[in-house]
Amino acid sequence: MPTENSFRDTLFDAGLLIASGVDGIYGRSGEFESVVDGIDGLISRDGGMPGAEVVRFPPAMPRSVMETSGYLKGFPHLAGTVHCFCGDDRAHKKLLQCLEAGEDWTAQQQSVDLALTPAACYPVYPMMALRGPVSAAGHIVDVSSYCFRHEPSVEPTRMQMFRMREFVCIGAPASVLAFRDMWSERGRVLIGALGLPVAIDVANDPFFGRGGKIMAESQRDQALKYELLVPVNSTESPTACLSFNYHMDHFSEIWDLRMEDGSLAHTACVGFGFERLTLALFRHHGLDRSAWPQHVKTALWPS
Amino acid sequence: MPTENSFRDTLFDAGLLIASGVDGIYGRSGEFESVVDGIDGLISRDGGMPGAEVVRFPPAMPRSVMETSGYLKGFPHLAGTVHCFCGDDRAHKKLLQCLEAGEDWTAQQQSVDLALTPAACYPVYPMMALRGPVSAAGHIVDVSSYCFRHEPSVEPTRMQMFRMREFVCIGAPASVLAFRDMWSERGRVLIGALGLPVAIDVANDPFFGRGGKIMAESQRDQALKYELLVPVNSTESPTACLSFNYHMDHFSEIWDLRMEDGSLAHTACVGFGFERLTLALFRHHGLDRSAWPQHVKTALWPS
Repeated sequence: MPTENSFRDTLFDAGLLIASGVDGIYGRSGEFESVVDGIDGLISRDGGMPGAEVVRFPPAMPRSVMETSGYLKGFPHLAGTVHCFCGDDRAHKKLLQCLEAGEDWTAQQQSVDLALTPAACYPVYPMMALRGPVSAAGHIVDVSSYCFRHEPSVEPTRMQMFRMREFVCIGAPASVLAFRDMWSERGRVLIGALGLPVAIDVANDPFFGRGGKIMAESQRDQALKYELLVPVNSTESPTACLSFNYHMDHFSEIWDLRMEDGSLAHTACVGFGFERLTLALFRHHGLDRSAWPQHVKTALWPS
Repeated sequence: MPTENSFRDTLFDAGLLIASGVDGIYGRSGEFESVVDGIDGLISRDGGMPGAEVVRFPPAMPRSVMETSGYLKGFPHLAGTVHCFCGDDRAHKKLLQCLEAGEDWTAQQQSVDLALTPAACYPVYPMMALRGPVSAAGHIVDVSSYCFRHEPSVEPTRMQMFRMREFVCIGAPASVLAFRDMWSERGRVLIGALGLPVAIDVANDPFFGRGGKIMAESQRDQALKYELLVPVNSTESPTACLSFNYHMDHFSEIWDLRMEDGSLAHTACVGFGFERLTLALFRHHGLDRSAWPQHVKTALWPS
């Protein structure tokens, strides 16, 4: 397989991705988006969760949600917050002078109460917390949004802004764990139907710094996270296109999510990476989607 | 009509919008999203521009695009930039101490090379500039993205993060102006078909500060901007749901967009506000979309 950089160049040359000047920030062509839409539809049809509550959040959330959820303990390096100018006419004049002089005008902005959403499920937990106890049957939420992670890279599979759809399960420990395990099998079937070679392996989140190594080891030892891997950039380092995460009571303790009997709920989520799956399809079936195998086209665009 | 605040409360109570704790940042229910999808499909079908190039950009763009495009001259108060933590283990420890003490930990972040997209068309101009001269027939781009404007409000029609679809026309002055004028009529027909009362009026952008008043007057005097207005919050102050903008050579001069004969191109855009149109439909036809007039349902969900 060619190197990461040359795969990205191939995508640029084919017009599927459009360079912006910043690594990991790309425009997507209509062709690219047709595949994203096809995957989204396939997940709804073949992966749908009857009774799941559909909610769509914007790509920014209250900064307090990021702070409360513990994201900054594990992933400070990936987090993005929003800063804005809150001054008057005089301050504006100064800002424009800085800009013209090529100086840092952003120092005249202030942090506002927003952070970029790092994973589609983060706004779900505070939403659920406001509703009170979860019924014994549990609750499933279907979310999808643009997410941000500050990790500029030339690997096309590692974008700074990308879309993720997730099913989030909140309920009793046994049913939540069963949800996670059901999905790691179902995900294999769903993605296998797209003619992609898949493997499932235990994984860990990219925790920050020296302390992060211990957190990563603990996560692996407890087998809390699995990933569905597809070779995209290389066969040696396949790309995580789905992840299956069992949080135990991590988020429930933070947000005080309880079952009707008063016990802490557990939570799990399955996440689909739209851009990574789309890139995997272009990698394995070629850049011209009209020439893809018929069964793949039928799975993505059934009508 | 009830006040803005009570219309928002009605939407919260019906579960169509989900409060996040920050004004202008809301979750959307599946019902709400079905209407957004319906409007998107209607625009593609009845408003489609044959030959338009479909491109989808993420909700953040290079900060240099915001700086170069002149956005900070007119709208510094609406702009959002992205800040990230770039430190080591020791700095991380300090960040967490700040967070725990309730102090401002964001001071330990730095401005990175990204800004939130303020209108869907901003990334189009640098994309076109890289391609070289525009053919005499001109070029139309179909874009759509989440946009950010820092204007927290209790009016549900004034969100901080909202979706906008735009057709952007780059070409010779006469054809670009004709595109803008064609759309102000076509937009009236398209939205009228949804059973919404519409009016079209000359308008101005919300330029900042004292200098901004002069810019707004000039924009009105030249009739560069029109808006399609629908009463949503009140009949006295109807809401701009579409806008029709003729930029003359403003963006072309900045980005050096030229025609094949060497002359500066002109640009225009028509923008559709998905959330505003959706709210207008709920306001005029009721919160239960199954009870909407049949012709409206057929226009939104034809199959």
